[in-house]
Amino acid sequence: MPTTRKAIELVNVDPWEMSTLPDCRKLASDIIRRQGRFDEAFFMCDLRDAEYKCRLWKENLPRVTPFYAVKSNPDPLFTRVLFENGVKFDCSNQREIRFVLDNVPGARGSDIVVSNTAKCRKDIAFGCEVGANLMTVDSVEELEKIFPYKEQALVLIRLQGSEHTSKITFNRKFGAGPELVSKILRKCQELELNVVGTHFHVGLGFDSPLIYDESIRRSKQVFDEANNMGFNMRILNIGGSFPGGVRKRKQFLQAAAVIENSLARNFPVGCGVQIIAEPGQFFSTSAWILCAKVVAVKDCVIDEVHPASTSTDLKGRMARMQPVYKTFNRLSESHSEKHVQDVVDEDTIEDEHRVVIIRNVFLNESRFNAIPRATLPLLDLRYYRLETDEELANVGHPEPDAKTVLWGATCNPFDQIVEWDHAIDIKCDQWILIDNMGTYSRAFQCGFNGFGTPPVYYLGQSAHHAA
Amino acid sequence: MPTTRKAIELVNVDPWEMSTLPDCRKLASDIIRRQGRFDEAFFMCDLRDAEYKCRLWKENLPRVTPFYAVKSNPDPLFTRVLFENGVKFDCSNQREIRFVLDNVPGARGSDIVVSNTAKCRKDIAFGCEVGANLMTVDSVEELEKIFPYKEQALVLIRLQGSEHTSKITFNRKFGAGPELVSKILRKCQELELNVVGTHFHVGLGFDSPLIYDESIRRSKQVFDEANNMGFNMRILNIGGSFPGGVRKRKQFLQAAAVIENSLARNFPVGCGVQIIAEPGQFFSTSAWILCAKVVAVKDCVIDEVHPASTSTDLKGRMARMQPVYKTFNRLSESHSEKHVQDVVDEDTIEDEHRVVIIRNVFLNESRFNAIPRATLPLLDLRYYRLETDEELANVGHPEPDAKTVLWGATCNPFDQIVEWDHAIDIKCDQWILIDNMGTYSRAFQCGFNGFGTPPVYYLGQSAHHAA
Repeated sequence: MPTTRKAIELVNVDPWEMSTLPDCRKLASDIIRRQGRFDEAFFMCDLRDAEYKCRLWKENLPRVTPFYAVKSNPDPLFTRVLFENGVKFDCSNQREIRFVLDNVPGARGSDIVVSNTAKCRKDIAFGCEVGANLMTVDSVEELEKIFPYKEQALVLIRLQGSEHTSKITFNRKFGAGPELVSKILRKCQELELNVVGTHFHVGLGFDSPLIYDESIRRSKQVFDEANNMGFNMRILNIGGSFPGGVRKRKQFLQAAAVIENSLARNFPVGCGVQIIAEPGQFFSTSAWILCAKVVAVKDCVIDEVHPASTSTDLKGRMARMQPVYKTFNRLSESHSEKHVQDVVDEDTIEDEHRVVIIRNVFLNESRFNAIPRATLPLLDLRYYRLETDEELANVGHPEPDAKTVLWGATCNPFDQIVEWDHAIDIKCDQWILIDNMGTYSRAFQCGFNGFGTPPVYYLGQSAHHAA
Repeated sequence: MPTTRKAIELVNVDPWEMSTLPDCRKLASDIIRRQGRFDEAFFMCDLRDAEYKCRLWKENLPRVTPFYAVKSNPDPLFTRVLFENGVKFDCSNQREIRFVLDNVPGARGSDIVVSNTAKCRKDIAFGCEVGANLMTVDSVEELEKIFPYKEQALVLIRLQGSEHTSKITFNRKFGAGPELVSKILRKCQELELNVVGTHFHVGLGFDSPLIYDESIRRSKQVFDEANNMGFNMRILNIGGSFPGGVRKRKQFLQAAAVIENSLARNFPVGCGVQIIAEPGQFFSTSAWILCAKVVAVKDCVIDEVHPASTSTDLKGRMARMQPVYKTFNRLSESHSEKHVQDVVDEDTIEDEHRVVIIRNVFLNESRFNAIPRATLPLLDLRYYRLETDEELANVGHPEPDAKTVLWGATCNPFDQIVEWDHAIDIKCDQWILIDNMGTYSRAFQCGFNGFGTPPVYYLGQSAHHAA
C-alpha cells in the first residue's frame, strides 16, 4: 500500500477521539438539565470536527478541490463552515442548488457541480440560469435534454468506477462503459456540446483504495480519446466514498496516498487538468452525535427450540420467528449481570430447548427517522452511556444465552438498531450517545409515527453563526 | 373458509376499479396541462374511496369500531373524512395525538387509543391530560411509568398475536406471552392499575385469516383470567393488518367473515365487551395514486457471464454485480419491441456470455421519499401510463434477454422500484400512474436528495374541505 510521510504524521490527530466525546457529553448533560424533563432525542454537531476535516483534506489531497455532497447532510450551518474552509458543493437538482445559494453566503453557481445523471429539464434550465452549468451525463438520451442549453452547459461524462471491493456498488444504475462513452462523445460532437471532463464513483465501503487508481487510469484513457476528438478535457471528478468516520482516519490517509500517487502518474502537476471530488460522508460522518433516551426496557426469556434438535431448517426458523416468550421474573427486578448469570445457571437447558434472555431496550429515536437505514451496517456506530466513556457493546462479556436488542421507537418491527450477545446494564430514562451519526441520518428523517425530527445543538467557535 | 351472504354480495363493488383510475387520469392530465411544463410528481387522493371503505367496514364488521392508525398516512383531510364516517384514531405519542386534536374538528381524546407499548413519560402525561387515556402495555416495566396516572389510565395488555402465515411479524418486538401476561396482571393488581382489555396484532401480509380467530380465542382466555382476578374486562382490540389495497377486497371480506364468526363464539353480542380495531392500510392504501414523470431513459446492454458457465456461484454473482455495460446502438434510436427482438436475434449468444438488454427508466420520485421502502413487495402496486389503462407490466411479452428497471430519482443505488422481464415502450417526459400508494408512502417522505415532497390533489365531494 503506497503511503506518504505526511499521512503518517497525522495518524495521532483525531479531534473526536481527543476532545469531542467529552465535550458532547458535557453539552448533552447541560441540555437535558436545562430543559428539565426533556424527553426527546437531539443531535450535537461539533463544527471543530468539520474544520479539522477541511485541514485533513487539504494536507493529504492538496490538488483535489472537494465539492461537498449536500445530500449527505443538508445542514445550513455545517455547509457554511465547510465553504468558509474552501469546500464547494455537489448538488443533484434545483432544490439542492437553491439550498446552497440560499444558505451559504458567498456561494455561487460556479461553486456547484450537478452530478445527477438523470436530470429533470427544469433542473438543467435552472442550473444554467444560475451558473451551476457543470453537469454529469452517462447516456446519449440525456444529451438531448441538455442540447437547448449548449451555450452554457459544461459536460462531465460519468464512467463506471472500479468497484471490485466495494460493499455498495453503483454501476448498475450509474456510469457508462467504454463503448457507451465513445458513443456519448460522438453524439456530443454532433450536437456541439462542450465535454470538459469525466466523473466516476468507486462505490461505498471499499476494502482496497487501489480502485481509485484503477478508475483514474480509466479516466485518463477517456481524456486521451476525447482530446483526440478535439474536446478540451480539463476537469477530472474522482467522486466520493472517502472514509470519514471516527476511527477511519487511517483508511482515508491510505486512499489519499493512492490517489495522489495515481494523479502524479496520470495527471501530473502542470497538465492543466483541475481535479475535483465529491466527498459527502468524509465531512459529515464524524461531526455528528445523536443523544437518545431509553424510554423502555423489557426483559424476556425466549424458550427457543434448539436449532440442532430440529429435523428441518424450516422448523428451526419458524421456532425462532414465533418464540414463546416467558416472563423472566428475577431479571426484571434487577439489571445486574450477576443476576443474569445466576438465572442462566439455574435454568435447566434441555436437549430440545435453548433459553435465551433478551433485554429489549427501546430508544426514543428510530431507523425510520434519524438513525440510518440501509447504510447502518457500514457506519461503525458506537454506543456510549451519557455518564461513561465505556462503550455499551463492551459492557459484560458475550454470553451464549443472553442478548440485548436495541429497538427504535416506532411501531415498525424492522426498526431494530443493533443486537449484542450479552445483557447490558441500562435502565429506562438513561441517555445513550451514538457517534458517526452525520451521514444520511438527518437527510432521511421524516418524523414517521409522530417521532418528530431531533433538534441540533452546535459546538465550536463557528456555532455563533447559527441562525 | 367461513363466509357470509353479505360478503358475497359486495364482491363486485370496487369504486377504484370502477371509477377511480379514469377520474385520476383526467385529474392528472388537467394538473399537468394547467401547470404547463410541470416537472414534479404529485399524489391524488380519492376521498370517495375513503367513504366507500367506511361503508365496506360497517357492512362487514358491524360490531367492530375502527380506530384509524394515523401513522399509515397522517393526512388532515383524509383523516377528517374518516372521522365524519364514524372512524376513530390509533396514535403512538403526543405528536400523533396533537395531530388528531388539531386537525380533525370534533375529535376528542376519548376518540383515541394510544397503542405504543414503549411510551415516553411525557406521552402518557399528555394523553391522560387530554383524555387519550386508553393505552397499551406489554411489559411490567411500562406499568411503573403509568403508575403516576393510575386514576385516569385504562390499560390494554398487548398479547402476542398469531402470526403463522404473516410475511412481516411483530412478536419479537411487541406483545406478551401467556406467562408475562399473568405477571402484568398481578403487577397491575398490586399497583391498582385499571386493566380494561387486551390488544393483539397478527402481523402483515398473512395468507390465512384464521390467525384472527386464533388471536381472538387467546384474548378470550386472558379476559377470563383477568375477570377472575377482579378486573372488569370490557375492550377487545383486534389490531390491524386488514387488507385494503385495490384488488384485495376479497381477502378483506374473508378476514371480516372469520372475525365476525370468531367474535360470535368468543365475545357474543350482549357480553358487554366493546370490540375495536386499528386498521391503517385498510383505509389508506387504495385511495392514493402517485403520478410520476419519466425523466430519463437509458438503454444498455449487459454482456453478462452466463450463470451456467461459471465454475462457482461467487464468480457468477460477481459477474452480475460488475457487469460490463455496452452501448446498444440501435435500441437507443428506437424503442419498439420489434427492434429489441431483431437485435437479440442478430447477437451471437456465446456459451460463456448472455447479452441482456436493459432499459433503465428513471422517475422523478424515489423509494427514499414517496415510494415505500420496506413494504414495497407487499403492496401489489400497478403501473399505468397516463394515457392508457394497460398496465406497464403487461406491455410486451416476457423476454429472457430483455429487462426494464424502474429506478427512483436519487443518487442511491438501492433506489430501484421494480424490474420487469421485458423492455417497455416508454419515453422521457411521459407520466406513470402508480396505484395503492396510500400506506407508508407520504408517512415516510423526507425529501432526500432535494426531491421534495409531492403535493396532494383531492377528488370527491369532501375535497371542498381542503384548507
